[in-house]
Amino acid sequence: MKNTILFRQLLDYETNTYTYIIADADTLEAVIIDPVYEMADRDEKLIKELWLTVKYFLDTHVHADHITGSSELKERLGTGQIWVGEQNKGISHNDLFLKDGEILTVWNIHIKVLETAGHTGWCVSYVIDDMVFTGDLIFVRGSGRTDFQSGSNQKMFYNVRERIFTLPNSTKIYPGHDYNGNMSSTVGEEKLYNPRLKEANNYEDFETIMKNLKLPYPKKLEASLPANMKCGHRCG
Amino acid sequence: MKNTILFRQLLDYETNTYTYIIADADTLEAVIIDPVYEMADRDEKLIKELWLTVKYFLDTHVHADHITGSSELKERLGTGQIWVGEQNKGISHNDLFLKDGEILTVWNIHIKVLETAGHTGWCVSYVIDDMVFTGDLIFVRGSGRTDFQSGSNQKMFYNVRERIFTLPNSTKIYPGHDYNGNMSSTVGEEKLYNPRLKEANNYEDFETIMKNLKLPYPKKLEASLPANMKCGHRCG
Repeated sequence: MKNTILFRQLLDYETNTYTYIIADADTLEAVIIDPVYEMADRDEKLIKELWLTVKYFLDTHVHADHITGSSELKERLGTGQIWVGEQNKGISHNDLFLKDGEILTVWNIHIKVLETAGHTGWCVSYVIDDMVFTGDLIFVRGSGRTDFQSGSNQKMFYNVRERIFTLPNSTKIYPGHDYNGNMSSTVGEEKLYNPRLKEANNYEDFETIMKNLKLPYPKKLEASLPANMKCGHRCG
Repeated sequence: MKNTILFRQLLDYETNTYTYIIADADTLEAVIIDPVYEMADRDEKLIKELWLTVKYFLDTHVHADHITGSSELKERLGTGQIWVGEQNKGISHNDLFLKDGEILTVWNIHIKVLETAGHTGWCVSYVIDDMVFTGDLIFVRGSGRTDFQSGSNQKMFYNVRERIFTLPNSTKIYPGHDYNGNMSSTVGEEKLYNPRLKEANNYEDFETIMKNLKLPYPKKLEASLPANMKCGHRCG
């Protein structure tokens, strides 16, 4: 990571969600990836303490396990634009739509948008410098689930293999969640060790694993989906 | 942080403890700071997956809230030396004693030992490159408690002000614990915003805050202290 990048990873203990603040260290212009509604007090305080001006609120997808903090923070801070994917036609309260391959800039920071569906029908990853923020596509030694919200095993496998594993091996992976106390990984590590998506597995191996996960129903889904379809606007 | 440093921060959810792995990226020689006994499976697996050879196990102090994983990992991995402070005369199963000001080297990584008592009668911080690992001396916007194990408000205040706040403002602070989802801070931030130890507070302010904390008795103290006095040796 360049020395000119200010970087913070934050955890919401209740939903195991990671939020990321990335800022240009000289101008203090910032982007926030995947803020959590309930953590708005903490995040607002930190953003103000660091004298940051938020330019973009970037969610990786429409979350089912928590409500995004994007609208709440935008309203409190009075700055920033909320960007969501162009496929999310029913969404409201966003400022702009993201396209695959688009590059957002925050002074000297370039944020490349990769369309990486699989966990849901529309997800993106963000590549910044030597880091990739993968949301619920690939986790440290795991992956997001694919069994609701138009999730797709085929898309997840394709997007990890063709869009994440084609980044340099040293690229740091910063996931949307972790449940074992890991903060990050690298592309090289996940190619070797990800039990679901490693290079030694073929698609049939992956599909068998995903079909046998037997995961519980997401407990916050009914509240989260409609709220996130309006970018978490006035959910309190 | 130099690009030649491999860095991992790990969390134990049960005790909110952070463990750190720092390695020379070329030779893969590593140090582990504050491993947790119950997380030995995770940590052993990660160390092996990253092909690391552990040279030093470094605890910041004799913990009261968890048992160190140092002895267990040393035994499982068959490498590494456990270093503890020279003031800990009653301790056993360590290989060597640390002195204030000592510099340990792991190839191109230099680890400077700072004696920083306060949370307990003996604690150290480790300075590596642009990072300082402060154990339970100073947290992100907080500090360790001082009400047992020969803790001292005077020593904590002195050591934070004279030994941590004299590092460059950009130095990253990596604490032993956090309870709000923060992973790190900087010296500059804590000088301004630490509610207990910020520069705007004098010693009397700090002492008043610490005397009014009314913290519960550490629930794992009876198990942790005797186990940690033998570096967590065969505690399973």
